[in-house]
Amino acid sequence: MRASLPLNEFDRETKANERPGDHKGELRLWLRMLTCATLIEREVRQRLREEFQITLPRFDLMAQLEKSPTGMTVGEVSQRLMVSNGNVTTVVTGLVEEGLVDKRPAPHDKRVQIISLTAAGRKLFRIMAACHEEWIAELLAGLSDEDVVLLMIQLKKTKASIQQAMKSHATDA
Amino acid sequence: MRASLPLNEFDRETKANERPGDHKGELRLWLRMLTCATLIEREVRQRLREEFQITLPRFDLMAQLEKSPTGMTVGEVSQRLMVSNGNVTTVVTGLVEEGLVDKRPAPHDKRVQIISLTAAGRKLFRIMAACHEEWIAELLAGLSDEDVVLLMIQLKKTKASIQQAMKSHATDA
Repeated sequence: MRASLPLNEFDRETKANERPGDHKGELRLWLRMLTCATLIEREVRQRLREEFQITLPRFDLMAQLEKSPTGMTVGEVSQRLMVSNGNVTTVVTGLVEEGLVDKRPAPHDKRVQIISLTAAGRKLFRIMAACHEEWIAELLAGLSDEDVVLLMIQLKKTKASIQQAMKSHATDA
Repeated sequence: MRASLPLNEFDRETKANERPGDHKGELRLWLRMLTCATLIEREVRQRLREEFQITLPRFDLMAQLEKSPTGMTVGEVSQRLMVSNGNVTTVVTGLVEEGLVDKRPAPHDKRVQIISLTAAGRKLFRIMAACHEEWIAELLAGLSDEDVVLLMIQLKKTKASIQQAMKSHATDA
């Protein structure tokens, strides 16, 4: 990939000379990425429902809690999952009712609620996570190891580009 | 890319010899793709709300209708957008109230409702679509033309892999 850097620089210049307003290439790229992500997400959602009778938001929330043995606040989870506090609270309520998540006041501040996985929740999550990993591998089985590495590099650039643009936009506003 | 095909074949064999159950690479790839897609979608959703006071589901529905001058049924839209009929109906109701979408019985079968953009809806959508294209180009500005082409090729393989796996899964079930 390194060898192609000078060409990238050249392309960037060419791009600057493009007819203004012609960004069909980037639009097509975005739509293709969105299709891939939507297909995988829909498949994972369906398999979680069929095999574990669990919704994707519940699985995603358990995945966050699994990474944090000391628990998290609703605000922290909401930020990580990029969804509203209200949505997190609804999902937490369901998981507490099923005995998979525990909710208790923080030791240092009783007004703050700390949520964490129960032992049963942790056990179930690990089984689901192993299946989830298998499903993803199955869905991406048509990619060689080389494809996976190439995509990882290209998507890292993509993520950096998005974050840079979001930062500039926030500053402009 | 063609020159690397034999290597791909070799990789596939290597992969078959991997420790079973080790699919961290594919999982990381999926999580990175999901992050990119979520970041772009969140940004588009926010800008549509701020600049046009419109929700993303309404924009997506208008985008489908714009491609079909003779209109579509709720079932057709629902299939294209991969969401439920009920959700489509809710979004359509809001757009009809705002005068952006028209809903009328099909000429050949009065029980079937055909939805289409009104002249006002079409005009507004074209303005929004031009902005949307600019936003995507801005978010992906860190990618060279070469990066865009590489990603298009890799995501085409990804989409084919997902569709193949979904087909096999459906046959197994």
